[in-house]
Amino acid sequence: MESPTPRTEVRRLAERAIYDREVINAILDEAIVCHVGFVVEGSPVVIPTIHARVDDTLYFHGSPASRMLRSLKKGVAVSVAVTLLDGLVVARTPFHQSLNYRSVVVFGRARLVDDPDEKLAALQAVTDHVTPGRWEDSRPPTDTEVHGTLVLALPLDEASAKVRTGPPVDDEEDLALPHWAGVVPMSLVPGEPIPAEGVDWSAPDYLTDYQRPD
Amino acid sequence: MESPTPRTEVRRLAERAIYDREVINAILDEAIVCHVGFVVEGSPVVIPTIHARVDDTLYFHGSPASRMLRSLKKGVAVSVAVTLLDGLVVARTPFHQSLNYRSVVVFGRARLVDDPDEKLAALQAVTDHVTPGRWEDSRPPTDTEVHGTLVLALPLDEASAKVRTGPPVDDEEDLALPHWAGVVPMSLVPGEPIPAEGVDWSAPDYLTDYQRPD
Repeated sequence: MESPTPRTEVRRLAERAIYDREVINAILDEAIVCHVGFVVEGSPVVIPTIHARVDDTLYFHGSPASRMLRSLKKGVAVSVAVTLLDGLVVARTPFHQSLNYRSVVVFGRARLVDDPDEKLAALQAVTDHVTPGRWEDSRPPTDTEVHGTLVLALPLDEASAKVRTGPPVDDEEDLALPHWAGVVPMSLVPGEPIPAEGVDWSAPDYLTDYQRPD
Repeated sequence: MESPTPRTEVRRLAERAIYDREVINAILDEAIVCHVGFVVEGSPVVIPTIHARVDDTLYFHGSPASRMLRSLKKGVAVSVAVTLLDGLVVARTPFHQSLNYRSVVVFGRARLVDDPDEKLAALQAVTDHVTPGRWEDSRPPTDTEVHGTLVLALPLDEASAKVRTGPPVDDEEDLALPHWAGVVPMSLVPGEPIPAEGVDWSAPDYLTDYQRPD
């Protein structure tokens, strides 16, 4: 895991490549959405979905009707990317424009989770990944619901992170130009919870004080 | 474009599928980051990058050293996905947990942009896609910089959107449960611009009042 494979070796701007497991895990845990790529009849397909990490495994869930899951069910090669946008890097020239971001790309073979205990733990992980604390504060899934949900598992054996932070890097001769340069920070911010019809009490703390893990 | 192809026909939760070009364009224009999937030696690879739409074409740019662009240079099949997260859908049971989101998936063959005028227009589009108004307020790229940047073009012929909005959809028999249910809105919010070293004047309005297109 700590040493790059040929596929995960980040070739562009190598100084941004990170193979440290804690960095990779933190990015996977903070991102709410991931993008899963797979191959259908020789052509690439990329689809967004929700994930959760449990130790060294990334789980996905979804309806059995989903094309992605139908394809993955057989156990197929996937590439999963998550990207956290941290800022717009505004340089003196478009050539040096950039983004501050933290991203992870994982490669591997996703397998269908058959074991009911592993499946239930994965569903809990996915729920608490999006809304930590929610699993305990909701009606547990029925056997039929668990049965009707496909869960896929991807080992985190082949993963790498890319991170860009800090100000723009302009050419020396451009530094005196009259163009403002710097970073516009960007962050994903929760709003006030909106209750569903019939819910006339306050949302729980884990939603009113919602925040992603650090 | 308006009618789905077999690949873009959204099979899961069909009521969320949208083939309307204005909806698709608006999602592509609002998203800052996209995820590009392609096939390398039979295996899927997904990488985040910046894009911009010009009429019916999606452009990407990046360093010639990038593995993605090296591969795409030959003109390869890609799938591009963008996802805007609008809210966490908190249902009474994990089975109905969901996200409110707007996403677009595009399929097609990306070609390398050779024409210098098209390339320059694409670079302007990418710059102004991230920071509208920035191109005019920056040092124009030199011929060497333009030459040193690879730009790829993907026709928006085969694209579809998926959108989920609104409250959770719980089972009738769960509505009386004591669990709060509703939506936590999520949005990408800009912070105060941080000037680079040596920049001791205020950021321009297009950065202090930064907002994504509606």
